[in-house]
Amino acid sequence: MENGSLKKWRFQGNKNLTTSSGFTVRGVLNSLIENLNVNDPRPTIPLGNGDPSAFPCFRTAIEAEDAIVDAVRSAKYNHYSPTAGLLPARRAVAEYLNRDLPYKLSPDDVFLTLGCIQAIEAILTSLKHPGANILLPRPGFPYYESLAAHIHLEVKHFDLLPEKGWEVDLDAVEALVDENTVAMVIINPGNPCGSVYTRQHLQKIAETARNLGILVIADEVYEHLAFGSTPYVPMGVFGSIVPVVTLGSISKRWIVPGWRLGWVVTSDPNGILLKTVIIDSIKGFLNISSDPITFIQGALPQILDKTKEDFYSKIIDILRKDADIGYDKIAEIPCITCSKKPEGGMFMMVKLNVSLLEGINDDMDFVLQLAKEESVIVLPGIAVGMKNWLRVTFAIDPSMLEEGLERMKSFCQRHAKKQ
Amino acid sequence: MENGSLKKWRFQGNKNLTTSSGFTVRGVLNSLIENLNVNDPRPTIPLGNGDPSAFPCFRTAIEAEDAIVDAVRSAKYNHYSPTAGLLPARRAVAEYLNRDLPYKLSPDDVFLTLGCIQAIEAILTSLKHPGANILLPRPGFPYYESLAAHIHLEVKHFDLLPEKGWEVDLDAVEALVDENTVAMVIINPGNPCGSVYTRQHLQKIAETARNLGILVIADEVYEHLAFGSTPYVPMGVFGSIVPVVTLGSISKRWIVPGWRLGWVVTSDPNGILLKTVIIDSIKGFLNISSDPITFIQGALPQILDKTKEDFYSKIIDILRKDADIGYDKIAEIPCITCSKKPEGGMFMMVKLNVSLLEGINDDMDFVLQLAKEESVIVLPGIAVGMKNWLRVTFAIDPSMLEEGLERMKSFCQRHAKKQ
Repeated sequence: MENGSLKKWRFQGNKNLTTSSGFTVRGVLNSLIENLNVNDPRPTIPLGNGDPSAFPCFRTAIEAEDAIVDAVRSAKYNHYSPTAGLLPARRAVAEYLNRDLPYKLSPDDVFLTLGCIQAIEAILTSLKHPGANILLPRPGFPYYESLAAHIHLEVKHFDLLPEKGWEVDLDAVEALVDENTVAMVIINPGNPCGSVYTRQHLQKIAETARNLGILVIADEVYEHLAFGSTPYVPMGVFGSIVPVVTLGSISKRWIVPGWRLGWVVTSDPNGILLKTVIIDSIKGFLNISSDPITFIQGALPQILDKTKEDFYSKIIDILRKDADIGYDKIAEIPCITCSKKPEGGMFMMVKLNVSLLEGINDDMDFVLQLAKEESVIVLPGIAVGMKNWLRVTFAIDPSMLEEGLERMKSFCQRHAKKQ
Repeated sequence: MENGSLKKWRFQGNKNLTTSSGFTVRGVLNSLIENLNVNDPRPTIPLGNGDPSAFPCFRTAIEAEDAIVDAVRSAKYNHYSPTAGLLPARRAVAEYLNRDLPYKLSPDDVFLTLGCIQAIEAILTSLKHPGANILLPRPGFPYYESLAAHIHLEVKHFDLLPEKGWEVDLDAVEALVDENTVAMVIINPGNPCGSVYTRQHLQKIAETARNLGILVIADEVYEHLAFGSTPYVPMGVFGSIVPVVTLGSISKRWIVPGWRLGWVVTSDPNGILLKTVIIDSIKGFLNISSDPITFIQGALPQILDKTKEDFYSKIIDILRKDADIGYDKIAEIPCITCSKKPEGGMFMMVKLNVSLLEGINDDMDFVLQLAKEESVIVLPGIAVGMKNWLRVTFAIDPSMLEEGLERMKSFCQRHAKKQ
């Protein structure tokens, strides 16, 4: 090959990546933010994301801040992390989860990750083999779909049933499974539905999965954020029925999504996963991935042990108040219905009746115009798999939530079809 | 499908992942650590990794610690990060790099990542298209190979020339390029060679790449760690000759690899990359990836602006002293030779003459027995692409370095073939 003889550059980029993010929550929210009216003097009200950290009432526990400061000032945690995480931090997570389990996890069952996002990446990548498919809930958390597309893991969807408190349609799960199905995902407390599953329903899920021979991936990033009548029960309780891989994080309970500290935990007292290469795959994946920040791992035992009950209950109280406001205000809007008051997490899934509106054809139209006219950001249902629904977070400052839903009500009144 | 009729579990795991980590630096070092003699009362001397953060003399700048503490205490940075990073942090990186460039980068040219590892992942994944290949240096940093295998990007190697101060064999680069070659990687200051390339050599690399129509990926994770006669020049200086994608991090200059704050920067004053989808690919990749910790991004402007010259020069002085010790001590060991005293980075690449040793067949044998008998950890050359060489870090406490190399000398004397 001769120098200078080439007419053009040889690099072009990865077209798959430019489209893979189209339906991430981030991608959709970014396009809504671009649609805001910069001349509206009112503050923008963010009902799109599960991140209330900017509101003073949701400030994280002082014990968590102290733990980080202590870890940084100790200068003991500036080094690279070991692959699965620092042992004391893994032990702390095992002990934290053991409070709610009928058997004991060991530090070896715990792999620390960069938030729940990397936990999802670790387990999906580790389950993938040629032809494999995975069952995901609809509605769900669209990162699962984006990542599965990126790693070429086939996806099938089962419905969550709004008329049954967003429980899993287990008949659909049985009908969907084929010989290449490796796992099903549940998200509890629910994103986007605000549901908290009963012990009985979780046990049925475990039994169904065992009968079908598939793994249960329990996304419990909203763990302990339950404020209704149904107590939170971790799926790992049923680890002796079916192997459970639990995904968790401090992001939500401590209101620190920017700290990126999560975990993948195998709840498998019968040692079934040891007969597969899944655990080695997780280690292999983490070996070629970035690690959670060492000093945050160093702080983790103190965060999990020292945070006071007061903090947890303060957050639960605000979320309960928010859920009440959300449910009551939505009830005042004729074209939007919420089938059940949320009992957990940070979101409610509400149904939009566009036939009652003028000039609004679907949920995407609705959220774009809402952003433009009212400076209120809400996620369209289509982004989580349900056209003409909306995902609304109630986890913001209560008075702002009230204002945001008031604006949404005016918007709907203004656009209501004349009778 | 009937319940209960299945004889076995359907999940098995991803076999590709269980092998992909075999030749990561981590994988090899882990197996050496397992080979240590736990009964040796002497401290283990870690000459395997580029992470001196545990040694008090290498403690990070107080300004960097202060910046983190201020960011955490402000409670302004607990939220999710935007996709490419916080704007003030991106601006701070652009301004930091602009100090050494003949043109001005803007914040839009900067994408923040989880250390340099995710920066490598971002650019390699974004360059991949079906059939594409990339040129990597030998010896190099084996994460490139592990990741390329994981994402199915073909790799070709060009040699670095020990007799020419580990410069790139540009004739080999020209011979290797084919129509599917998208980029070449250089690591400067060098890992594992301790080399610092002259301005002239960097310009030749740029001209060669331009003539071949390929991108230059400049891994500058060891930026500014140059302590010999050759000053450090960033590759971005030649961005007007060829588009350069610079990978960097605070890990090495600030001795905080556990903080995981890095960057991908496009140095492309002629806007050539804008004609491709590479920038959109990087954004798409980051959209489905974990982000660097928000409060570390919040601290970054203060870290880059406020760190005093004293800190930088203290680190450079220790590294220079270490390089002197390393070079001089290695010269006392007959079966090991170092062709040139390191001038930058944290490593030296030294040649092992196993024909002078009894019962040691290759570099892997050497490092395993050295770990067992002397509690000294050194990376075998095979892990970085060169059999019967060794990669030795000199970046540790100088007195420990002296002791470690003294032990290596005894080891070699004890295993020397009788004349």
